Amino acid sequence: MPDFSSIGIDIGGTKISAAVVKNNEIVSDLKVLNTSNSADAILKQILEVTSSLTNSNDVSSLGIATAGAVNKDNSKVMGSTGNLPDGYSDIDFKNEIEKKFKLPTLLENDANAAAYAEYKTGNGIGKSNVIVITLGTGVGGGIIIDGKLMRGTSGAGAECGHIIMSFDRKRKCTCGTWDCWEAYASGTGYAITANEMAANITEDKRTSLLLNKKTGSITTYDIIDGLKVNDKFAIQVHNTWEFHVLLGLVSLTNIFDPDCFILSGGMADFINYDKIQKELSEMTIISKPQVLPAKAKNNAGIIGAGILAALKYGK
Amino acid sequence: MPDFSSIGIDIGGTKISAAVVKNNEIVSDLKVLNTSNSADAILKQILEVTSSLTNSNDVSSLGIATAGAVNKDNSKVMGSTGNLPDGYSDIDFKNEIEKKFKLPTLLENDANAAAYAEYKTGNGIGKSNVIVITLGTGVGGGIIIDGKLMRGTSGAGAECGHIIMSFDRKRKCTCGTWDCWEAYASGTGYAITANEMAANITEDKRTSLLLNKKTGSITTYDIIDGLKVNDKFAIQVHNTWEFHVLLGLVSLTNIFDPDCFILSGGMADFINYDKIQKELSEMTIISKPQVLPAKAKNNAGIIGAGILAALKYGK
Repeated sequence: MPDFSSIGIDIGGTKISAAVVKNNEIVSDLKVLNTSNSADAILKQILEVTSSLTNSNDVSSLGIATAGAVNKDNSKVMGSTGNLPDGYSDIDFKNEIEKKFKLPTLLENDANAAAYAEYKTGNGIGKSNVIVITLGTGVGGGIIIDGKLMRGTSGAGAECGHIIMSFDRKRKCTCGTWDCWEAYASGTGYAITANEMAANITEDKRTSLLLNKKTGSITTYDIIDGLKVNDKFAIQVHNTWEFHVLLGLVSLTNIFDPDCFILSGGMADFINYDKIQKELSEMTIISKPQVLPAKAKNNAGIIGAGILAALKYGK
Repeated sequence: MPDFSSIGIDIGGTKISAAVVKNNEIVSDLKVLNTSNSADAILKQILEVTSSLTNSNDVSSLGIATAGAVNKDNSKVMGSTGNLPDGYSDIDFKNEIEKKFKLPTLLENDANAAAYAEYKTGNGIGKSNVIVITLGTGVGGGIIIDGKLMRGTSGAGAECGHIIMSFDRKRKCTCGTWDCWEAYASGTGYAITANEMAANITEDKRTSLLLNKKTGSITTYDIIDGLKVNDKFAIQVHNTWEFHVLLGLVSLTNIFDPDCFILSGGMADFINYDKIQKELSEMTIISKPQVLPAKAKNNAGIIGAGILAALKYGK
């Protein structure tokens, strides 16, 4: 790809961040705003930050990483958008920005944009088939196949957190169905597993971590703290969670035969990469992908959106 | 794609079949041979059938659909090849055919080749993102993304039968691990489910089908026969199997957001398409793909291999 400059904007429920992206890097000041609580005010914020960045930089396109699925031609947000205000998905960012600034504009789902940044600038460099899994409050995914972001027919692909892991309807998922990978492998799932295991433990197996806690009140942080002092119960919970993560990776390996998985998000810091790599290799059929931590942690959404806009619209 | 003629050959454990493919159709006599029981003899069969087809037809490339995974550049069979003889994966078909006939040659996994034929000539026509699932003795897959066969990093992608469906290690899978989709959604899995359910049934729920059968000896055919006379136990088993099939499709929908699924293989004839379509739409997040039966049933491997060779090597 030749040199390019584009604006990348990441719109989340709490913060809006924006910068100029050139040669896969942020080259301007980073603008960070608190996300407004009305759709009209968010549009105003986006137009203002764009105005400010175009005043002092020569750019030729603009990419927005946003919560929610984005339609096939990258022009509109569809469906649910987490904790953004009512009316958000009706904002016509593309038309408003193109009209006002003559900047060709692309929208992309934030997990997809961040995955693309990881592929271009992080541990995915030089590989063709990369699956980025975000282990956070939920479980998200971004999939690059033969160097291209896989978006699906309606733009809603790569919802990897919603692989179903049981026929038995054991645990409700936020998506309305049961037993999705996210319900187990996320930080939320981690805490649910801890409390379920605590409820089923016999008196003689109660470790000091449990003596101080009511069942139902154990948090992910409690278990992580327990790991630091080798609490046996904490170790059991953690191993169970790593097994939950592992089985999803086995399924995705057999489906995609990727070069590597890259794990991002807060929970990815608690993965034992050597262990999961070994176990994955033992459980998959042919493909033996690498399992790596994310590198392009901060501002990956901005960078990915910027690169994708530049790729679509050229310099 | 312009006009082309190529030879397509499908090598299975029982039969080898071959024909000339032009404009996505078979345009010559179909040659069918019993697969020999040694690798050397199979190579001889392939060279002879190629010689016979090239003598009477003008062709410019050759494609082989084969059991087993095929490497990234479509030149060699890798790993397990089901019931083909020892030494089969060492045969250098590509080199032997190119040397003798000057015909550029491509190898492709048989499920991938058949899926590509379904995409080009069957119910996948006009769509971009198509997932073909073969429900037979096992569960196979072929995946087309943005009009391209997804092969994976080592050529071993689309092993959709090996999505893991349980954390609980309930049922061993042929791949060596536990609880793959194949272990439940295949014809083999169907019979295992029937016998498990029969073992757990109370006396008062024993239908006429069960009175005549020892637990452990119930076959898929017994249940299919039972459905014809509305045997309640048979209906329960069948509904359980359809639920097993459904949950795999939900996972694949959330991952790929495809235009459609196409179900092929012997067990696909027993799917209630209206029912599974309705249930799938209710359980997925955004994407609502169609669920369709396969159309290009016979000789799909030959046709797919022929088209893929012509696409790779031109007219």
